Amino acid sequence: MKVVEDRVLADGKIGEGDVLKVDSFLNHQIDIGFLCEVGREFHRLFCNCGVNKILTIEASGIGIACMTAQFFNVPVVFAKKTKTVNIYGDVYTAKALSYTRDGYYDVTVAKEFITQSDNVLIIDDFLAKGNALRALISLIYGAGAKIAGVGIVIEKIYQGGGDYIKSLGIRLESLAKISSMDKTGGVCFAE
Amino acid sequence: MKVVEDRVLADGKIGEGDVLKVDSFLNHQIDIGFLCEVGREFHRLFCNCGVNKILTIEASGIGIACMTAQFFNVPVVFAKKTKTVNIYGDVYTAKALSYTRDGYYDVTVAKEFITQSDNVLIIDDFLAKGNALRALISLIYGAGAKIAGVGIVIEKIYQGGGDYIKSLGIRLESLAKISSMDKTGGVCFAE
Repeated sequence: MKVVEDRVLADGKIGEGDVLKVDSFLNHQIDIGFLCEVGREFHRLFCNCGVNKILTIEASGIGIACMTAQFFNVPVVFAKKTKTVNIYGDVYTAKALSYTRDGYYDVTVAKEFITQSDNVLIIDDFLAKGNALRALISLIYGAGAKIAGVGIVIEKIYQGGGDYIKSLGIRLESLAKISSMDKTGGVCFAE
Repeated sequence: MKVVEDRVLADGKIGEGDVLKVDSFLNHQIDIGFLCEVGREFHRLFCNCGVNKILTIEASGIGIACMTAQFFNVPVVFAKKTKTVNIYGDVYTAKALSYTRDGYYDVTVAKEFITQSDNVLIIDDFLAKGNALRALISLIYGAGAKIAGVGIVIEKIYQGGGDYIKSLGIRLESLAKISSMDKTGGVCFAE
């Protein structure tokens, strides 16, 4: 999607450790008009798939999921990264390896919000190795629900997460696909 | 706001430790149509205040802030509860006492996203003792920015957070004001 690629080129910054910093418009400060365009595009891509729920993971996926959910008129569920006293009762839990923090964390969803009758669209800001996505997929399959697809704003295709998703037979749509990235050469997109 | 009060009465659950569980529509699963109405109401209340930015705190404030920001057509900034490697450079930090977790946590915003020229509307899901809000207010004043007001979906008025906000001369608008709450009597609203 040109608007995402252009925005990454204009405002993305390459940091240490292969981190693409997009916090001026996507995951710390949020450009709401930009996010609305992103949501509209995810709807265009998945509008014929029978999506009845959108699942994301806190925190930076929430805004994107909400803006997307408006077009589908379906609820959002955001998985939590720590179990707090606000979640009672039965939960699904999966472990995820953090890309930007050290070690593993628990990804948790209350069982009542993902059920066998759900056909879930997963939405997130980034896809690199796919660690968070693996956990979300495991939660959905654990609930006996279906996965309509995965919508990602920015994928780093050279890190293998996308290949893994597709190897499961899950449809993946990434709005910007980064094929390489370094401080001297900048960001290059696939296709 | 009647739609918020009605929803709390219909779907809110009172848990241990004076916790009101609204995770079926507000802070785990999100009813996007409901959130859109909430955002429209915050815009109606604050549309003449010169708001140029909306500040919230991860995670459950983000969806509400995004849905509200659409009506204002201004950016959202969400404060982070832990410092990760995705935040570089200078940040404002304030300590907040957690209501639902034990102990204090750091609330952090990159300095570039809150500046002297900002007139900030703070949005959050809950106001009880106001611990998170105190930290957000301290960050904004530390940046030399102005506060246009505070918009809260559900306030527990008997816990004192609202009195504190108003004692600072900050306008507070809470869409549902809970005056008392217990498992036998249920939820009662003020006014």
